[in-house]
Amino acid sequence: MVLLVYTFKSLGGIQLKKIINNPEDVVQDMIEGILKAHPSMLKNVPGTSVLIRAEAPVKGKVALISGGGSGHEPAHAGFVGKGMLDGAVAGEIFTSPTPDQIFAAIKAVDGGEGILLIIKNYTGDIMNFEMAAELAETEGLRVAKVVVNDDVAVENSTYTTGRRGIAGTVFVHKIAGALAERGASLDEVQQVAEKVVRNVRSMGMALTPCTVPAAGKPGFQIGEKEMEIGMGIHGEPGTARTELVSADEIAEILVSRILEDLQLQPGEQVALMINGLGSTPLMELYILNKKVAQILEERKIAIYDTYVGEFMTSLEMSGCSVTLLKLDDQLIELLEAPSDTVAWKK
Amino acid sequence: MVLLVYTFKSLGGIQLKKIINNPEDVVQDMIEGILKAHPSMLKNVPGTSVLIRAEAPVKGKVALISGGGSGHEPAHAGFVGKGMLDGAVAGEIFTSPTPDQIFAAIKAVDGGEGILLIIKNYTGDIMNFEMAAELAETEGLRVAKVVVNDDVAVENSTYTTGRRGIAGTVFVHKIAGALAERGASLDEVQQVAEKVVRNVRSMGMALTPCTVPAAGKPGFQIGEKEMEIGMGIHGEPGTARTELVSADEIAEILVSRILEDLQLQPGEQVALMINGLGSTPLMELYILNKKVAQILEERKIAIYDTYVGEFMTSLEMSGCSVTLLKLDDQLIELLEAPSDTVAWKK
Repeated sequence: MVLLVYTFKSLGGIQLKKIINNPEDVVQDMIEGILKAHPSMLKNVPGTSVLIRAEAPVKGKVALISGGGSGHEPAHAGFVGKGMLDGAVAGEIFTSPTPDQIFAAIKAVDGGEGILLIIKNYTGDIMNFEMAAELAETEGLRVAKVVVNDDVAVENSTYTTGRRGIAGTVFVHKIAGALAERGASLDEVQQVAEKVVRNVRSMGMALTPCTVPAAGKPGFQIGEKEMEIGMGIHGEPGTARTELVSADEIAEILVSRILEDLQLQPGEQVALMINGLGSTPLMELYILNKKVAQILEERKIAIYDTYVGEFMTSLEMSGCSVTLLKLDDQLIELLEAPSDTVAWKK
Repeated sequence: MVLLVYTFKSLGGIQLKKIINNPEDVVQDMIEGILKAHPSMLKNVPGTSVLIRAEAPVKGKVALISGGGSGHEPAHAGFVGKGMLDGAVAGEIFTSPTPDQIFAAIKAVDGGEGILLIIKNYTGDIMNFEMAAELAETEGLRVAKVVVNDDVAVENSTYTTGRRGIAGTVFVHKIAGALAERGASLDEVQQVAEKVVRNVRSMGMALTPCTVPAAGKPGFQIGEKEMEIGMGIHGEPGTARTELVSADEIAEILVSRILEDLQLQPGEQVALMINGLGSTPLMELYILNKKVAQILEERKIAIYDTYVGEFMTSLEMSGCSVTLLKLDDQLIELLEAPSDTVAWKK
């Protein structure tokens, strides 16, 4: 074994177990790293943290924009591309992007047919996306909005009035994006996005907290033998802090709460997403899926397709969320439509 | 906020922060969860932990099998499908599958044109895959082998004579799988697999250890302010245990060691993989990629394509590996060929 001797520079006193440089620069460094990795798919709106399709603006197509605080990767830049989003706006970690950044995204992707903003329901995001929409409208652009509030865990939470928007947002990207790609109007794209919002429900749980790099320590604690049910993707409180239970019991808790809300009938079809929050191994997500699928089978709900992986994360939080999307023929067809993005290829 | 009251069963005294049931059942539970998630793509060889293509055996095609200990998901079942593997054999966690399991896989995927075994270089895997090959040959099957040893960190390690096989193995799956799909012979498929092995180099580092569920505690420790350079995907020792450094310095350490070994010339092209070991957020992998790409640009090495994500993990270990594959026209064409697997769609 050869022992190498390296000369190390300091990490500025920050002793986070993270692969980063200056904690203040993580979002900018990440954006540059994304651009270097995917230059044929994505480009940057200069001077912003906005990533758009390499071919944007796509003339004659409704454009879709999403975004929000960073720390939820691959959301949302991973879903920018053919058949999904036209642009993603990245705020600082767990912090809404500013209206001028969102406005820059709107202008950059406008193809003349209007822009749909897909907003996760957090108070800061709602406010800033709405301000950006007003700025755009004063310049004569047509902007529509859809607010995703799929998290059935709690009615109101730290940063939200009403239900939070979490992993179900990705189904809105996929389905509204597919319809936009076919040349549908802004009204039609907005309507299908709203149908997805009506039909999608999620709920999550966490085993460990996460650390915002600039803060330097976890924003909250979960005891060694505890978990939190219904925790949000920024660590907002859930419904119960309890002792750690088995994967099968976690599945029962999450799915029964979702089904109670979604009122599915036997024979109906769903798309199922088992989403990891950042540091949960794929092995554990599949173990969870085994029981989730069994519960749905017992209730005679047909699983049309299952997506297992990381779609909407929370830095290195460990935990998961389960999302069910109730399907009809239109939604199935759009779910099956081609998409070519970094994190969702169909 | 509604506080729900749940009745919890016990987790058998195990207080792991994991989404699992019985620690002894994690591999079986995972396999069932994978099958429930992807029934149109994968099927099980009954009574084994072997997952094969839903359409296997594919008549008239060389079949490819890989596998090894579990805990490296999505490797290898995530790479089973059109254009990549025909079957994956899952051992217990970090434990080679037994010869009879591998033999069952060989028989299940045999399409009459021979079988290529893609083996990561660990002593147990080599021994068991070779025994399975002998069993198959006594039944008249043609079996060829390729051993992947891409890890440049150390020459010999805990479970290995010679260099270890890590994330570069996935490029062997992709490229040999693409050639097999076109109807090439067993010799041709083996030769291109060996070319990939000659051209691929990787090196990793870890920030935290991981816990094998049945063991119940981490197999090793890394200090609060430390990292380990060159650590293997089962926690085998690397080249240096050092203080934690920045993402840019990690990139320099890993890439310079790989380039020293791979002897790339200015103007040559590579495929680049930035692989997360299990609990490293995508954000950090992209931050690392920024510097890795810069280093390659400075050396005038062209990056043909970049793959960022989790390909070869180590349970919930935090850390990463960097892989470079030196390309030529044949390898580029095969890398671009269609593939339709759970974890690699092209």
